Amino acid sequence: MRFFSDNAAAACPEVLQALVDANRLDTAYDGDAWSARMDGAFSDLFGKPVRALWVTTGTAANCLGLAALCPPHGAILCHEFAHIEQDEAGAPGFFTHGAKLSLLPGDGAKLLPAAVDEACDRIRADVHQVQPAALSITNATEYGLTYRADEVAALGDLARRRGLGFHMDGARFANAIAFANADPADVTWRAGVDVLSFGFVKNGGMNAEALVFFDLDKAELVPRLRKRAGHLLSKGRYCAAQILAMLEDGLWLTNARAANGAAATLAKAARDRLVYPVEANELFVRMTATEAASVRAQGFDFYDWAPGEVRLVTSWDQDMDAVARLAAVIEAL
Amino acid sequence: MRFFSDNAAAACPEVLQALVDANRLDTAYDGDAWSARMDGAFSDLFGKPVRALWVTTGTAANCLGLAALCPPHGAILCHEFAHIEQDEAGAPGFFTHGAKLSLLPGDGAKLLPAAVDEACDRIRADVHQVQPAALSITNATEYGLTYRADEVAALGDLARRRGLGFHMDGARFANAIAFANADPADVTWRAGVDVLSFGFVKNGGMNAEALVFFDLDKAELVPRLRKRAGHLLSKGRYCAAQILAMLEDGLWLTNARAANGAAATLAKAARDRLVYPVEANELFVRMTATEAASVRAQGFDFYDWAPGEVRLVTSWDQDMDAVARLAAVIEAL
Amino acid sequence: MRFFSDNAAAACPEVLQALVDANRLDTAYDGDAWSARMDGAFSDLFGKPVRALWVTTGTAANCLGLAALCPPHGAILCHEFAHIEQDEAGAPGFFTHGAKLSLLPGDGAKLLPAAVDEACDRIRADVHQVQPAALSITNATEYGLTYRADEVAALGDLARRRGLGFHMDGARFANAIAFANADPADVTWRAGVDVLSFGFVKNGGMNAEALVFFDLDKAELVPRLRKRAGHLLSKGRYCAAQILAMLEDGLWLTNARAANGAAATLAKAARDRLVYPVEANELFVRMTATEAASVRAQGFDFYDWAPGEVRLVTSWDQDMDAVARLAAVIEAL
Amino acid sequence: MRFFSDNAAAACPEVLQALVDANRLDTAYDGDAWSARMDGAFSDLFGKPVRALWVTTGTAANCLGLAALCPPHGAILCHEFAHIEQDEAGAPGFFTHGAKLSLLPGDGAKLLPAAVDEACDRIRADVHQVQPAALSITNATEYGLTYRADEVAALGDLARRRGLGFHMDGARFANAIAFANADPADVTWRAGVDVLSFGFVKNGGMNAEALVFFDLDKAELVPRLRKRAGHLLSKGRYCAAQILAMLEDGLWLTNARAANGAAATLAKAARDRLVYPVEANELFVRMTATEAASVRAQGFDFYDWAPGEVRLVTSWDQDMDAVARLAAVIEAL
Repeated sequence: MRFFSDNAAAACPEVLQALVDANRLDTAYDGDAWSARMDGAFSDLFGKPVRALWVTTGTAANCLGLAALCPPHGAILCHEFAHIEQDEAGAPGFFTHGAKLSLLPGDGAKLLPAAVDEACDRIRADVHQVQPAALSITNATEYGLTYRADEVAALGDLARRRGLGFHMDGARFANAIAFANADPADVTWRAGVDVLSFGFVKNGGMNAEALVFFDLDKAELVPRLRKRAGHLLSKGRYCAAQILAMLEDGLWLTNARAANGAAATLAKAARDRLVYPVEANELFVRMTATEAASVRAQGFDFYDWAPGEVRLVTSWDQDMDAVARLAAVIEAL
Repeated sequence: MRFFSDNAAAACPEVLQALVDANRLDTAYDGDAWSARMDGAFSDLFGKPVRALWVTTGTAANCLGLAALCPPHGAILCHEFAHIEQDEAGAPGFFTHGAKLSLLPGDGAKLLPAAVDEACDRIRADVHQVQPAALSITNATEYGLTYRADEVAALGDLARRRGLGFHMDGARFANAIAFANADPADVTWRAGVDVLSFGFVKNGGMNAEALVFFDLDKAELVPRLRKRAGHLLSKGRYCAAQILAMLEDGLWLTNARAANGAAATLAKAARDRLVYPVEANELFVRMTATEAASVRAQGFDFYDWAPGEVRLVTSWDQDMDAVARLAAVIEAL
Repeated sequence: MRFFSDNAAAACPEVLQALVDANRLDTAYDGDAWSARMDGAFSDLFGKPVRALWVTTGTAANCLGLAALCPPHGAILCHEFAHIEQDEAGAPGFFTHGAKLSLLPGDGAKLLPAAVDEACDRIRADVHQVQPAALSITNATEYGLTYRADEVAALGDLARRRGLGFHMDGARFANAIAFANADPADVTWRAGVDVLSFGFVKNGGMNAEALVFFDLDKAELVPRLRKRAGHLLSKGRYCAAQILAMLEDGLWLTNARAANGAAATLAKAARDRLVYPVEANELFVRMTATEAASVRAQGFDFYDWAPGEVRLVTSWDQDMDAVARLAAVIEAL
Repeated sequence: MRFFSDNAAAACPEVLQALVDANRLDTAYDGDAWSARMDGAFSDLFGKPVRALWVTTGTAANCLGLAALCPPHGAILCHEFAHIEQDEAGAPGFFTHGAKLSLLPGDGAKLLPAAVDEACDRIRADVHQVQPAALSITNATEYGLTYRADEVAALGDLARRRGLGFHMDGARFANAIAFANADPADVTWRAGVDVLSFGFVKNGGMNAEALVFFDLDKAELVPRLRKRAGHLLSKGRYCAAQILAMLEDGLWLTNARAANGAAATLAKAARDRLVYPVEANELFVRMTATEAASVRAQGFDFYDWAPGEVRLVTSWDQDMDAVARLAAVIEAL
């Protein structure tokens, strides 16, 4: 019974069905009927005209988004534990031709306006220092915390005032929205976000993520950058079809609620051991090596995160019996 | 009835079935059971140990391969009509951090050793000129010609002598092998090829291409470059599974033969109008604007290529009735 | 007696004196009194407000200028024999992060509007092809030809119409202006040039070139790019001082006229052997290997350029006795 | 009386004389007699065969050196206040095509082995994290501290063990050597340093710095990278001549001792106000705003560094009367 990554889960049946349905001749690249519906589907979801492009990975989504916001000689402000800093092999430096990630602290991998303000204040405007051009946050954060609309808006105000583009890495955007029971518009464009990496793969997709531009001007070059980075698929309709299937009838929220629900069950059992509140589908749980070994011996797989700390991740298709059993095991430690 | 691109065709049923079969929990990225079989499957096919990675596009395959062969300050020798020069939005410059494509002439988009030799001779070895580091050919070529083993070997000898890495863009490798009835080893590593972009998408795949390194040392950095370029999928098993399905029972050759067969039927009908011999699944056919309009009026879609010239492309699932009808229409012009 | 490069000549006495005069404490980088006079001095020369920056090499001037005009995903149209293509080690690819040089033909390394127009026409506007963003010409050309104001203006009109930035590599701008007896404004901004690499080193400078922006908006980022490329000298006043000294009393033209005069003397002697008209300080002279050996045996140094062809270059300080002797030797061949 | 930067000082008379002496026809680029002596002169100084190249700025020296040690997908470990991080406009990212600077803490901008070790331990070896490839230290540090030979050697051992290239930014190398009265070999190659940016400009040079490779293999590509970055001057002899003049008779040490001596005089006067020990030619002095204003009112110029802290920098030509007067003024505060 595996609790180590939502990345490893299967694709949901609706996604597979969408691939079957899309399996006929159409125009190549993004000239097909499914790709043509992307802008509309996301515009409906967000309640304003947006530009939405499919890509196959979160790294590509993040880095194309950042490349649209930050020139090679600029800096992107982000949390020191952000995925773009920790887990993308330097891809932001590749896509932006050498822009700098300026790393900021913050509890639970969450950025607060004060940290951003202070970082900006420290930078002289002369040609010797790299000027900040963009701000990037992750929602839900790398430690499973969720930004509330007003928290994003405070950062958005700051970004506007400082002239920074504002990117949200939403690899687990669905989990964040499901947890906060928020209007997607409120935590994105209404709060000043210019571009969102809207994750589907961790949430039941197979290999399709969306890059959503609320600022249409900033999207202008992105189709060209996507092609230049080798991310324009010949048969793009299979990406678009997955995404459209997950938007339909709110499947993206249904899946996220399932994963969050499993996490909540475990969180209750581990309530005295939690390093952070559980606000999505990740738990960071204090556990001695002996305890962890005992849990593993009972058939549960998960990552050690730090000395005395393990990480549990639930996914859209987590078996609820296994969840109940793991909860019982943790409670019994 | 469409004859404009093999890119636009559907995925073949075996590929879809492979996705269904792979649709269960496994390790993320390329840690899964399917990805683990890639090296072995291609080593069997080529009769020597190779390193094989999946990516989702031919552009990514080509450019990761080229980045492994050519430093930022080097040059890649290729045909002036090569896909990497004409149709990849400058991706080679992106992946190599600014390496130069040195463009060479050649009938039917085919490179001959003399052109390569001459280009190398023209370059002074000093620091002012960009030194050639790699040679890239396309097989089948952009004009549907197929390299024979001895033709590749002559280029391979030259590459070795000149210290050039040797890349083959095999977006239509299957069509070339099927046409020449060749041993894949003979037109690749035995002929000096270091790395092959082995195309599956145009041949019935959905979104998986293989990058095959015959020179294992040159592959060493590529997994890192693939990740840095955002091309390491979270659920890589769906790529690997497609490719493995197409390798099984020679499906890749079966599909290619189908496409080539359709092209051969049309070629026979258009025999007096062909700009180039038809050695794969593309035809370049002389046709006046009036003639082309008449063919289109009878329900056939294709691209104009040049004044008085159209391009027809067949695919693995081309309807043979439609092919027969188009052949008759062309014959009747 | 050396006739192989104006690059190898000494610096003129006024330049050395300017270094001595500038040799006192001032503000670092370009905050000094001399650097502060650059914009004004060039604005006076060109009869309109310009932005002028010093750099130490022609390659840096060209490539910072091009980086200001062309994005990483764009193309720069230039002659196939342009210095930026042939002799800058791929620096344009480095400074632009991988932009492409699209190479055009033309007699005497001179670009004609028809070639530019045709190249633009061939490029599809889709995301698969690299879009042209800039046009770069060299004046005087690599074969010593000089553009007349109307020739530049025809290209400038085309650049405007096509949306291309327009760069002039003026490594031998002084020689071109001296030969044509032209108003510098007429062959630059009045003819549509956006940015000029104005060469001083080949013309008696020590290590200072100017990058002159006629389009002030395009200059905006350049100080930052110059620093990022390591080209902002700590003691910039020694660059500025050299340039200002050469602008004073028209020294740049005096020096260029001296070099051109020497070339004209040789051209007269070699009139039946010239490959191109001599319109600056370079001569391309047909000479058999035996003839060349005989000339060398009489004490003259120069480069072989092609089979049966040598290149002679004169400089601002060419000894006129040596010139007369070489003229006599050539005449006597 | 200015105490704000050694960057702003004049060039010393021997450097000017060297320019006059070099002012004659020679071969262009680095083919001249002076450039040919660079390797030998530095090999003599360091007591082993080295490869030494001139460039015109410290940023170019640092970044070419780092580009030789670190691939685009690697990381350079350096102090969070290192010049390459704080004051080079992102040039390391430009020259390395996007490598990452991993920032480490340390008192007085000095790196200790423990910090480096810990940073390396935190990095997983997988493809998701950027792997460290180089270590860069500054000697003297940004806060005027000098590394002793054994301190460098401890870092050098660590670098070897971790497989890191080892770069020393020696913008004020002369001041560090003069202060420590050290053998240059002991604090560089004998301690494991692979490449040194050996500064001359702050120490009485005009516009020439040296990049010294102790590891000859790592130097191999650098002449090509220098050209590609526009840093190969046409008349390189004027750079080489400056450097050779400063190496002769130990002028580099004489100049550095003069600057250090002036700093020592001020340090004595400010002994109760020093933020860091004074081990080169920079002083960081606690001073209230009122005190600073009073000092300035008496004719002394310097930078505010932090609230309640000013920076004083002395140079090779500091007027010792002015130094004595400033010392008295500080003492009297």
